[in-house]
Amino acid sequence: MAKITKQSDNFSKWYTDVILDADLADYGPVKGTMVVKPYGFSLWTNIRDSLNKMIEDSGHDNAYFPLFIPKSFLEKEAKHVEGFAKECAVVTHSKLISEEGSLTVDPDSKLEEEIIVRPTSETIIWHMFKKWITSYRDLPLKVNQWANVVRWEMRTRLFLRTSEFLWQEGHTAHATKEEAMKETLEIVEIYRTLFEDYLAIPTIIGRKSNLERFAGADETFSIETMMRDKKALQAGTSHYLGTNFGSAFDVKFQSKDNKEHPVYATSWGVSTRMVGALIMVHGDDKGLKIPPKIAPTQVVIVPINPKKEKSEEFSSFVMKVEKN
Amino acid sequence: MAKITKQSDNFSKWYTDVILDADLADYGPVKGTMVVKPYGFSLWTNIRDSLNKMIEDSGHDNAYFPLFIPKSFLEKEAKHVEGFAKECAVVTHSKLISEEGSLTVDPDSKLEEEIIVRPTSETIIWHMFKKWITSYRDLPLKVNQWANVVRWEMRTRLFLRTSEFLWQEGHTAHATKEEAMKETLEIVEIYRTLFEDYLAIPTIIGRKSNLERFAGADETFSIETMMRDKKALQAGTSHYLGTNFGSAFDVKFQSKDNKEHPVYATSWGVSTRMVGALIMVHGDDKGLKIPPKIAPTQVVIVPINPKKEKSEEFSSFVMKVEKN
Repeated sequence: MAKITKQSDNFSKWYTDVILDADLADYGPVKGTMVVKPYGFSLWTNIRDSLNKMIEDSGHDNAYFPLFIPKSFLEKEAKHVEGFAKECAVVTHSKLISEEGSLTVDPDSKLEEEIIVRPTSETIIWHMFKKWITSYRDLPLKVNQWANVVRWEMRTRLFLRTSEFLWQEGHTAHATKEEAMKETLEIVEIYRTLFEDYLAIPTIIGRKSNLERFAGADETFSIETMMRDKKALQAGTSHYLGTNFGSAFDVKFQSKDNKEHPVYATSWGVSTRMVGALIMVHGDDKGLKIPPKIAPTQVVIVPINPKKEKSEEFSSFVMKVEKN
Repeated sequence: MAKITKQSDNFSKWYTDVILDADLADYGPVKGTMVVKPYGFSLWTNIRDSLNKMIEDSGHDNAYFPLFIPKSFLEKEAKHVEGFAKECAVVTHSKLISEEGSLTVDPDSKLEEEIIVRPTSETIIWHMFKKWITSYRDLPLKVNQWANVVRWEMRTRLFLRTSEFLWQEGHTAHATKEEAMKETLEIVEIYRTLFEDYLAIPTIIGRKSNLERFAGADETFSIETMMRDKKALQAGTSHYLGTNFGSAFDVKFQSKDNKEHPVYATSWGVSTRMVGALIMVHGDDKGLKIPPKIAPTQVVIVPINPKKEKSEEFSSFVMKVEKN
């Protein structure tokens, strides 16, 4: 075991020390990327399974949408354009050729339209919703996917800020504004339950200002948590998207009386960043501490009383430990 | 319900009809990509969970390695170069800029070295193994990941052949050739169990010829299955990689007597293609048929005997049904 920097000396260094010392993750070869090692991955798996159950139990279905998004899709929603006119991985070619043991990109394989590695999936999902939603019978449509997404980052902070990260992204379509807003807030409550009851992390629900909102949202609610260095960490968001994506992708539904109506949307996500929050809320100068519902290794303490004459003292001690 | 083409008329069209009719999947906007819809995804989830348990129970740990591989990594193993000098998604830029509502690729964001979206992960994993393996105590190292991979395809066949697909890829490192070969064959048996006991699909284990082997393998074993049109489908592979990747990435381990030794490798994978096999083995002219261990919806038949005087006849009928 390597020496861990004290939290009071350098919280940021303490954080990295704990991750490397506990063998949770490592740096990948491409700048900004991370390898999640088995122990770190089992933390993620336990969080994922707990949340997935709540997502499914509340009437959402898991599905899977493609990694690749045509560049033009990101241009369709006005605010989304601005929001994603930034760090993205751009695929421009589709073939490698080998020349004497080295590989070069085949210039003839240049794509007509560049492809973006998904930074988030609203656009591709609403492109599909256009095919799937025609009548009021198709609503509400509530899907979720567990996936990797990419937002180019040059400064890596393991789990907290990496170019590629794992997350779930929920996307729903509704017939009315009220229903979509209700969904947005129900998800906030699911996230709150995940954080408080499973991760043992207290939360404050925030509402983002105009400037901080998700690019394409009418309202963004965030789950704010406080780390041991007394800094806030945004640990999840739930967006009410209004009709922005429905309009951009020309999605409408026919009501019972054959009238066309706009479709209201939500989207929401939490990511591997939660593992970072877990470490920063519970860990101390000795290292990692994991709340019992998420811990990959469960410990059972079997009390054995060696002396009969002390059995009363012994049981009161055991009861005291159990209480805590 | 749309009309399904008869298997005897056009098996290939029957296959696509069944997928679309049963609402398992849809075509994505980028050529070669697929959307796995909720019902199709629940089939995949059930297969994945069954296999994942067997992988974990046999001593493998799940982990996660980056999507992005530096081009130079694919050049390191001689046969791997040739094998992957082909259809790959190449990331060349890392930024988009917005001009009057449209997005263009920032020419200044051109990467020094092109990045390949993983077609498989041997190279990036052995790059990491170089950091993790130094002593005999580090072996065997047995990891698995559930991930998306990309191999550019222009002709899409839903589940069977898509540019991006979901799979598991296992990667192991061993101190001896014998142990690595044993692992290669143990995995073949796990796959056989998955196919026969869970998917109810008979298998034949094949051994690939020089020409058909995985690029970088010394031996490739494949799980061959037969579809209803009497055509074979390769449904999974397990590779003995010898010291090819260990040497290419300069991985060695020190034995108890402080001598340096080469490291032996295996890799193995099955993918969403299994869902295609499931459809083509069990489906008929009425549509989809799913074996009970994988079926998302479980049906329980509750026998109710309306006439007391026929109770003997009734119970013998129930027992007959149960037997089958």
